[in-house]
Amino acid sequence: MDSQIKSDVKARLATAEGHLRGIQRMVDEDAYCVDIIKQVLAVQRALDRVNALVLNGHLHTCVTTAIRGENPDERERVINELMDIFELSRKL
Amino acid sequence: MDSQIKSDVKARLATAEGHLRGIQRMVDEDAYCVDIIKQVLAVQRALDRVNALVLNGHLHTCVTTAIRGENPDERERVINELMDIFELSRKL
Amino acid sequence: MDSQIKSDVKARLATAEGHLRGIQRMVDEDAYCVDIIKQVLAVQRALDRVNALVLNGHLHTCVTTAIRGENPDERERVINELMDIFELSRKL
Amino acid sequence: MDSQIKSDVKARLATAEGHLRGIQRMVDEDAYCVDIIKQVLAVQRALDRVNALVLNGHLHTCVTTAIRGENPDERERVINELMDIFELSRKL
Repeated sequence: MDSQIKSDVKARLATAEGHLRGIQRMVDEDAYCVDIIKQVLAVQRALDRVNALVLNGHLHTCVTTAIRGENPDERERVINELMDIFELSRKL
Repeated sequence: MDSQIKSDVKARLATAEGHLRGIQRMVDEDAYCVDIIKQVLAVQRALDRVNALVLNGHLHTCVTTAIRGENPDERERVINELMDIFELSRKL
Repeated sequence: MDSQIKSDVKARLATAEGHLRGIQRMVDEDAYCVDIIKQVLAVQRALDRVNALVLNGHLHTCVTTAIRGENPDERERVINELMDIFELSRKL
Repeated sequence: MDSQIKSDVKARLATAEGHLRGIQRMVDEDAYCVDIIKQVLAVQRALDRVNALVLNGHLHTCVTTAIRGENPDERERVINELMDIFELSRKL
């Protein structure tokens, strides 16, 4: 990951972490269930954005290098990993 | 939320928070992008479990009370909130 | 389901069916993979709308009747079904 | 798309189409809402499988060709399309 993406990803993860701490406080203070659920959904959406950033970096670096390389096993490996990510992310 | 669900939900949120801290370390240590993405997906799945717990409690308490009550606006309100949650969670 | 929702749901299902036939033609005519994927995603989104309509009707009828009724097993049954739908729709 | 994938994709689309026709009959016959929703979710899952097949073919052909080619705009284009698909499929 290049250092720009890296610091963006880290900042977003730290924000999501703080958001989860805030939700624990909401639970302690008996916030309305629906508000808690909506906040958890907001964290999940923020994490989607993190994954989009990491995936975009991955496609431009590792995937591009492997597919441009001469090792067919490496090409197959990065493609299979992309399929895994696609299927896991749909099964969330 | 009853106290049993409350402590379960809080424990799961705290675990997810720790998991996100671990992912920040992975980014720092230049872990493989695909491994980072898979860990973020695992946190999102764990948060789905949190939402299922909160929603289940909500259906047994607030929703049941409102629907059994005599105020049609309240009944409509809880149903509309369920529809919101359903649509937001599908649009994740 | 009331007859208004019923005819709306049927019309949307028929549209989705026609859309799927159109996608089969795209495959036959060697359309670009990305365009095929986007059309399939559009059908899935249209089906989400169908499910939202059916769920909304269900909450206003069967769920309301069961929860207002005096049979606790029935109340539990409709709540468990809502949880199933929520979890299945997240695991798509 | 190679002819093997093509006929597999077409068969799955035809099956999904038949499934949607069956769901229209369920609506006509006043089937239970929850059963209708579960059948629609099953069609959506089947369409996920179609998209996985098309995407897998796409990665092995167009994406591999573009990334191995010498046109940086083409490489960027296929990567952006993959990002689009990833984000659209998460926002379902």
